[in-house]
Amino acid sequence: MWAARTAKFRHCLAASSVSLRRCLRLGVTMAKSKFAYVRDFETDDTCLPHCWVVVRLDGRSFHRFAERHNFAKPNDKRALHLMTRCAQTVMEELEDIVLAYGQSDEYSFVFRRKSNWFKRRASKFMTLVASQFASSYVFYWPEYFEDQPLLYPPGFDGRVVVYPNNQTLKDYLSWRQVDCHINNLYNTVFWALVQQAGLTPVQAQERLKGTVAADKQEILFSEFNINYNNEPLMYKKGTVLIWQKVEEVTTKEVKLPAEIEGQKMKLSQVRARPLALHCDIIGDAFWKEHPEILEEDS
Amino acid sequence: MWAARTAKFRHCLAASSVSLRRCLRLGVTMAKSKFAYVRDFETDDTCLPHCWVVVRLDGRSFHRFAERHNFAKPNDKRALHLMTRCAQTVMEELEDIVLAYGQSDEYSFVFRRKSNWFKRRASKFMTLVASQFASSYVFYWPEYFEDQPLLYPPGFDGRVVVYPNNQTLKDYLSWRQVDCHINNLYNTVFWALVQQAGLTPVQAQERLKGTVAADKQEILFSEFNINYNNEPLMYKKGTVLIWQKVEEVTTKEVKLPAEIEGQKMKLSQVRARPLALHCDIIGDAFWKEHPEILEEDS
Amino acid sequence: MWAARTAKFRHCLAASSVSLRRCLRLGVTMAKSKFAYVRDFETDDTCLPHCWVVVRLDGRSFHRFAERHNFAKPNDKRALHLMTRCAQTVMEELEDIVLAYGQSDEYSFVFRRKSNWFKRRASKFMTLVASQFASSYVFYWPEYFEDQPLLYPPGFDGRVVVYPNNQTLKDYLSWRQVDCHINNLYNTVFWALVQQAGLTPVQAQERLKGTVAADKQEILFSEFNINYNNEPLMYKKGTVLIWQKVEEVTTKEVKLPAEIEGQKMKLSQVRARPLALHCDIIGDAFWKEHPEILEEDS
Amino acid sequence: MWAARTAKFRHCLAASSVSLRRCLRLGVTMAKSKFAYVRDFETDDTCLPHCWVVVRLDGRSFHRFAERHNFAKPNDKRALHLMTRCAQTVMEELEDIVLAYGQSDEYSFVFRRKSNWFKRRASKFMTLVASQFASSYVFYWPEYFEDQPLLYPPGFDGRVVVYPNNQTLKDYLSWRQVDCHINNLYNTVFWALVQQAGLTPVQAQERLKGTVAADKQEILFSEFNINYNNEPLMYKKGTVLIWQKVEEVTTKEVKLPAEIEGQKMKLSQVRARPLALHCDIIGDAFWKEHPEILEEDS
Repeated sequence: MWAARTAKFRHCLAASSVSLRRCLRLGVTMAKSKFAYVRDFETDDTCLPHCWVVVRLDGRSFHRFAERHNFAKPNDKRALHLMTRCAQTVMEELEDIVLAYGQSDEYSFVFRRKSNWFKRRASKFMTLVASQFASSYVFYWPEYFEDQPLLYPPGFDGRVVVYPNNQTLKDYLSWRQVDCHINNLYNTVFWALVQQAGLTPVQAQERLKGTVAADKQEILFSEFNINYNNEPLMYKKGTVLIWQKVEEVTTKEVKLPAEIEGQKMKLSQVRARPLALHCDIIGDAFWKEHPEILEEDS
Repeated sequence: MWAARTAKFRHCLAASSVSLRRCLRLGVTMAKSKFAYVRDFETDDTCLPHCWVVVRLDGRSFHRFAERHNFAKPNDKRALHLMTRCAQTVMEELEDIVLAYGQSDEYSFVFRRKSNWFKRRASKFMTLVASQFASSYVFYWPEYFEDQPLLYPPGFDGRVVVYPNNQTLKDYLSWRQVDCHINNLYNTVFWALVQQAGLTPVQAQERLKGTVAADKQEILFSEFNINYNNEPLMYKKGTVLIWQKVEEVTTKEVKLPAEIEGQKMKLSQVRARPLALHCDIIGDAFWKEHPEILEEDS
Repeated sequence: MWAARTAKFRHCLAASSVSLRRCLRLGVTMAKSKFAYVRDFETDDTCLPHCWVVVRLDGRSFHRFAERHNFAKPNDKRALHLMTRCAQTVMEELEDIVLAYGQSDEYSFVFRRKSNWFKRRASKFMTLVASQFASSYVFYWPEYFEDQPLLYPPGFDGRVVVYPNNQTLKDYLSWRQVDCHINNLYNTVFWALVQQAGLTPVQAQERLKGTVAADKQEILFSEFNINYNNEPLMYKKGTVLIWQKVEEVTTKEVKLPAEIEGQKMKLSQVRARPLALHCDIIGDAFWKEHPEILEEDS
Repeated sequence: MWAARTAKFRHCLAASSVSLRRCLRLGVTMAKSKFAYVRDFETDDTCLPHCWVVVRLDGRSFHRFAERHNFAKPNDKRALHLMTRCAQTVMEELEDIVLAYGQSDEYSFVFRRKSNWFKRRASKFMTLVASQFASSYVFYWPEYFEDQPLLYPPGFDGRVVVYPNNQTLKDYLSWRQVDCHINNLYNTVFWALVQQAGLTPVQAQERLKGTVAADKQEILFSEFNINYNNEPLMYKKGTVLIWQKVEEVTTKEVKLPAEIEGQKMKLSQVRARPLALHCDIIGDAFWKEHPEILEEDS
């Protein structure tokens, strides 16, 4: 019966104009409703209510991307600032993100515990974050890479993770920040050995095998006169984005009374903006200073 | 005990350089492994094996986006071609996509039934499609909108739907193509009424209330002398992308023997490319002509 | 290739004993491993870590079951006690259940927040609870229904719900207890109207339409001289099962020295048992009195 | 605000009868609706449409259960028949099961591809199968174990697996039947070595280490004069339950005209019943003989 009906509908699409009217009157809407059963194959991926929802993005094949675009090693300031600009755009354009944390080619976004944005559907959360971040990356690229044209559009993979309470959320963020610390220390020594001591990457890797954090700091200090503690905080701690009230002053030309004609008017407005910090988020200090991030009324 | 250990680790981070070495030797790796339990909160979102996996993208707030960028109504050729260019990039850059279908501001991507790309994790599929599509949209924008600068980076939401067999997959694609047909017919009449007959949007909407497909075709023909059958196929059918072998000729300057020095060499290569078709995919003809799309060996 | 191999294997199964040995050496294990791919279709249904896991059971078609087994209306003491006996067996036989709450033909079981029983797989939780409860129902039936044989084995449907914190868990239990209260009040009046006032079920239903709790209490008091507040707590509040230390005395015949031969020895042992309470669990009092239920060390 | 309202409600429950009426008028329904948000924590576990849904049950700790109840080794006929009786009850009492396959202490149930029973919710499928099976196990126990009282109510764990097409479903069933074959062959030799040759379990295990199927058959034949091919099919193949039309004759005493008074009447009725087969389901023969199992109209 189904086959018969679709056959009829296909006949309609090919039909001469004489019979088309009658055909279409029956056909198109019927066809639509016949096929609409395919919607039942969509699954519900609602995130558990009252939990923190985290979306983490990672650059796809960014090792190659960094090579092709001559990123500085071990850290490319322009690339890190561009990542943060994209994350800020995501926070401004999407709803309910209370905090973001980024390092290297990854960024995590934390949606507020009781967000009901898109009914908490995980697929909406992660695809909107991923696509907004990716389009922003290309859009803002020229602002950060003036002399380096973008050769191809990059991809980012994402995932959603749900954390039931403040402790697990904070531990998640700590996990990412410790990861930042470990990787940055490693990369700092590794590239010093390669760029300054002339080792090959394989030799540098060999040299660092089995060393712990303190060993690496020692190498940096004794061989390259680098005190790791003085390295930029953005490299060592990554970037935290939280909403902060800022006074924004805009200059605007306006029609004014004759006596002050031609003057410009400064408009001042207090707005919340996602501002970048490069601080420790593992200890309690950060959370005590910004209690509003985790506190939500029932 | 946990609290004690984290406290110790925080102490390390703040420690003077004298004690730092010992601290770090114990601290960082330990901290990393302590926090790593947060990975257990990630869920497995593997798509059911041996099934077609479809990722569908939709432009976010594209009504407004179209307004802001002066898209032609009811169809903007540049915008449609840009969408298709992005979809082609997605097919070229990602793995295992056998077909894509697009219309308006949406595009569906079909991964082959036995794909094991990223272990079939739904989140990987949808975020990589969404981000690659979005970055391509900004990247290729200038090629299609020469006189219209892009004002802001757009977002796309995505979802994954799994279809267990050929029939349900074909019905899914039919559902989208019927939707294309219905919307395009409606929009074609609607904008004729507004642009040519001078109705307000509300009046046009009123006029079309309760009409079926044939009524709309009649209005187009009798009032605007438009035979809907002659409208461009891309508008009526949307765009199907499938892999086709094409011969690509590239011209290359090469070192050649003296007697033919200075000449250029034409290199010809047969490659598979995602080519655009604007044909019916509801009937059997398309699938019979391209049996390789659905056929897969066990 | 696959088809060929299975054909070979089938050949083996039918083979004469001459070739069987060689066949089987290759065949059976190969066949097992060939088919083992079907395990990949199982999905991971791990419950989010650090959350309360609740399994709720409901009797299947218990309206009919109650009719067939002549349950007293509105409450059958034997049936309620049997339900509680089954729930106690579930708590004793399974792991990590910290509390159960039952009313009518339903029972909820709360697993401790950090349980890792069966790796927190939802399917294990709910099927083990459902099957243990159901087998216990038949097993203990004769103890509670001496004169009423069990006519057929009953079914119970179950579900798993995950609650991220104490507040949501307590609200879940409150929801069930309020439900118990509402249903029991309704049933008490309804059956008074039917059994004592001689109304038909339809008439009783009509009579109660639109009444609120206080109206029903008024009817009970003024027409049937029943003070609802004096109704048994088990009916009004349902049954809460929590682990309580109890001293268990068992009498055992043991080999003893000659002078006290033939005597029995009383052995006393302190054990934790799931004991039944019929108290309010909506207010704070219960939780303050039993803080150990919700408190867990990290 | 929420806290205030709950406090008010708790006050109501404790209130004197004077204020109770007004309290309850506002309170109970309000409380119910206030707590009802906890339902949003339930997740949708719908099985993918148009796919075969399999529920597999396994006896919990049946090694111990078999010991305690003196099951014969390697196969206990009574236990196997009881399992099948339970599976038949499940098929009769639940909806849409087209086939069941059992061996040892496990049973798999296949729901028809387009079943919409309980909206295809996995939790309903598995808990109803598990509970019905478990209650039947206790209910029918005395019919199969006349001289062996049931010592305690057993548990069964279950899971749901979804198969998208006939091939994967048949491979699943083949996987279970090959498993039956491998285990039964092993157990048959193992217990012959223990029971007849007097080896300890550890010695028997050692003896069989590294042997393939043919080696085991050889041991059986040469040492115990057992031709494995002659072992009962139920042991070697397990049990398949499919619906078969059977003529059922019931004898009934009825009021009859005087001239034939006192006679009994035989009533014959054709009904579909889940009948047990012990045949190969790996090859095509079974499926060709019973095409109705897998065939379903669209």
